[in-house]
Amino acid sequence: MSEVLAVDLGGTKCSAAVINSKGRILSRRTAAVDLTSPNAPVLQMIQLAKELSAPRTFKRAFRSAGVAVPGLVRRTGTVWAPNLPGWDRMPLASRLKRALGIPVVVESDRNAAIVGESWRGAARGKSDAIVFMIGTGIGAGILSGGRVLRGAHELSGCAGWLTITDAKRPASSGIGELEWLAAGPAIARAARERLEAGEKSSLSQLDCSSITAHDVAAAARKADPLAIEIFRRAGTLLGYGIANTVSLLDSQVIILGGGLAAVSDLYLDSLRTAMLERAQPLSAPKVKVVVSKLGDKANLLGCARLAWDHAGKRT
Amino acid sequence: MSEVLAVDLGGTKCSAAVINSKGRILSRRTAAVDLTSPNAPVLQMIQLAKELSAPRTFKRAFRSAGVAVPGLVRRTGTVWAPNLPGWDRMPLASRLKRALGIPVVVESDRNAAIVGESWRGAARGKSDAIVFMIGTGIGAGILSGGRVLRGAHELSGCAGWLTITDAKRPASSGIGELEWLAAGPAIARAARERLEAGEKSSLSQLDCSSITAHDVAAAARKADPLAIEIFRRAGTLLGYGIANTVSLLDSQVIILGGGLAAVSDLYLDSLRTAMLERAQPLSAPKVKVVVSKLGDKANLLGCARLAWDHAGKRT
Repeated sequence: MSEVLAVDLGGTKCSAAVINSKGRILSRRTAAVDLTSPNAPVLQMIQLAKELSAPRTFKRAFRSAGVAVPGLVRRTGTVWAPNLPGWDRMPLASRLKRALGIPVVVESDRNAAIVGESWRGAARGKSDAIVFMIGTGIGAGILSGGRVLRGAHELSGCAGWLTITDAKRPASSGIGELEWLAAGPAIARAARERLEAGEKSSLSQLDCSSITAHDVAAAARKADPLAIEIFRRAGTLLGYGIANTVSLLDSQVIILGGGLAAVSDLYLDSLRTAMLERAQPLSAPKVKVVVSKLGDKANLLGCARLAWDHAGKRT
Repeated sequence: MSEVLAVDLGGTKCSAAVINSKGRILSRRTAAVDLTSPNAPVLQMIQLAKELSAPRTFKRAFRSAGVAVPGLVRRTGTVWAPNLPGWDRMPLASRLKRALGIPVVVESDRNAAIVGESWRGAARGKSDAIVFMIGTGIGAGILSGGRVLRGAHELSGCAGWLTITDAKRPASSGIGELEWLAAGPAIARAARERLEAGEKSSLSQLDCSSITAHDVAAAARKADPLAIEIFRRAGTLLGYGIANTVSLLDSQVIILGGGLAAVSDLYLDSLRTAMLERAQPLSAPKVKVVVSKLGDKANLLGCARLAWDHAGKRT
C-alpha cells in the first residue's frame, strides 16, 4: 500500500482523491457539499473515502489522510469554518480518525495550497513563497525560510484584511478591505453599482441584481470597456496588497490561486505593475508573480503531502 | 571569560558594550560615527573594542562579537548600508574577524532588535512578535513560530514600504509610503506644510525650514493643537501598517522601538484604535501593542545573544 487519502472540503464542493508518494492523483471524486446539518459534510467525506477505497478497508487502502477545510484549524484538529453551518468547534480530526482508523491531519485550505505548490507546483524548490487564494474571499498561504507560517493562533495569511486605500467599507460588511475591494463579490458589486449609475456596458442586458464576477469576466473577454476597467482596477488593488506582503516577507514567488486565478489574464498586467510600483524596490524585481498551474489540485496535493508526513504518526 | 562584545552601529552613533551570558551590560561606550571614509566606522569599532577589552587582548576579553548595522546583511557578512558612505559591499564580518581574532556575527539592526526583545524584552517567551522601529525610517524585525524571518534575500521587514492609503508621494522620495507618511521626517514635514499654509501653532515661533519631529513633540507636550493632531494622524497611519502586519502574521505582541518610541504617548491611543479597527478581527484583540522597555539597548542585547549563539563556531 503506497497511497494516501486527500480531501479538499470547500464551502460548496468537496473533492477526495487517492494520491501516491510522488504526487500522482490515481483517482478522484467530487460532490456538492451537503450542508443540511453540521454532521453531513463529515459523513460525506467518509462516504467519498469508502468509494475510493472499495473493495479494500480504509486501513488497507490508505496509509493516512490529509484534509483541507475553509477555515481555522486549531492544533487539536478542531475546525472553525464560518461558511459551514454549525462548524464552530467541529472536532474533525478526531471524528475522522475514529471513522477511518488511520492517521488524519487537518489543515486550513490556504496552508494546504502552499504545501501543494511547494511539493508539486510553482513553489517547488523555493524557501520563500506565497499563494494568494482569490475567489469569494482572499487569503494567503505563506512559506518563509522553508516553513509554513502559522501565526500564534493559526490565523496567519488573512490577506483579505489588508488596508491599502482610503476606501470606506460598511462596518456591517464583516470582511477586510482588500477582500471588500477586489474579491469576486467586489467585482460583481462594482459592475452593478456602475450600471445603476447609468454607465454603458454589454452587461446591462443582464438582470443587474444577479450579475456575478463570471458575467463581468465574460463581458471583459468580449472587449466590454467597463468590464475590462473593473478587472484592471481589481488587479491594481491586488497588486498593492501583494506589494505589502512582498515588502514584509521578501518572497521569491507569488502564486495566484482560487477561482479568480482562472481569469487572471484580465488583471495580471495591472497587478504586476502595481506590485512593482509599491513593493520595496530591491525585493520587487526579484519576486515572480505567476498563476498556479495546479489549479484546484493544489489543495489536494498539499493534503497528500501533509498526509505522507503524518503517516508514521499515531492515529 | 564569560563575556561577549556587542556593537550597535547606527547612522549617527556607534555603541559598544561588554555583555555577559545573562544579558547584563557590564560596560558600554558610545561615540558619534566617523563618516570621513568607508573604513572609518570599522576602525572606530575596533577602537571601542580595544577600550572595552583593555588591558586584556580581544581573545582573552571576549568569547565572540555581535554587530548590528543599519542596512542589509548578506549571509557572508557583507553589508549594504545606504546611510554610511561607501558601504555598498563592506565585508564587515571578515574585516572584524581578522582584526579581533574572535568569531563575529553581523546582523541588520531590526533583526538584532527583535532578538534582543526576545531575549530580555517584551517578546520574551513569545513565539510570534514584531518590533516596529520608528525613527528616521521605519522597519520591522519579525519573529514567527520562534524564528527570525529573513526573507529570500535578507530583505524582510521593510515595513516602511507598506501601502495603506491613496496618498501620492513624489517618485523622487526614494522611500515607501508608510515611511513617507509617518516616520520622523514626515512629522516635521507635516508641521512645516501646515504652518506654510497659514495654520496657527506655537511652532510658528520657530524657523519653519528647520522644524524637526522633536520640535513637534515638544509643542504637542505643551498642548499645541496642531502638533497634537499631527502625531495622532501619524499614529493612525502606523496603526494601519501594524494592522496589515497583524493580519498577515498573527503575532502575540507588537513592540514599538526607535527614536519615536520615546514620544509614543503622543500617538499610542490612535495607533491602537486604528489597529483594532483594521486588523483581522480574531487576531486584533489578541495582540498587545507595547513600547520597548529596552530602548536603545535592544540592539546591543540582540547582538550579544547572537554572539553567544555564535561563540562555539569557527572564526
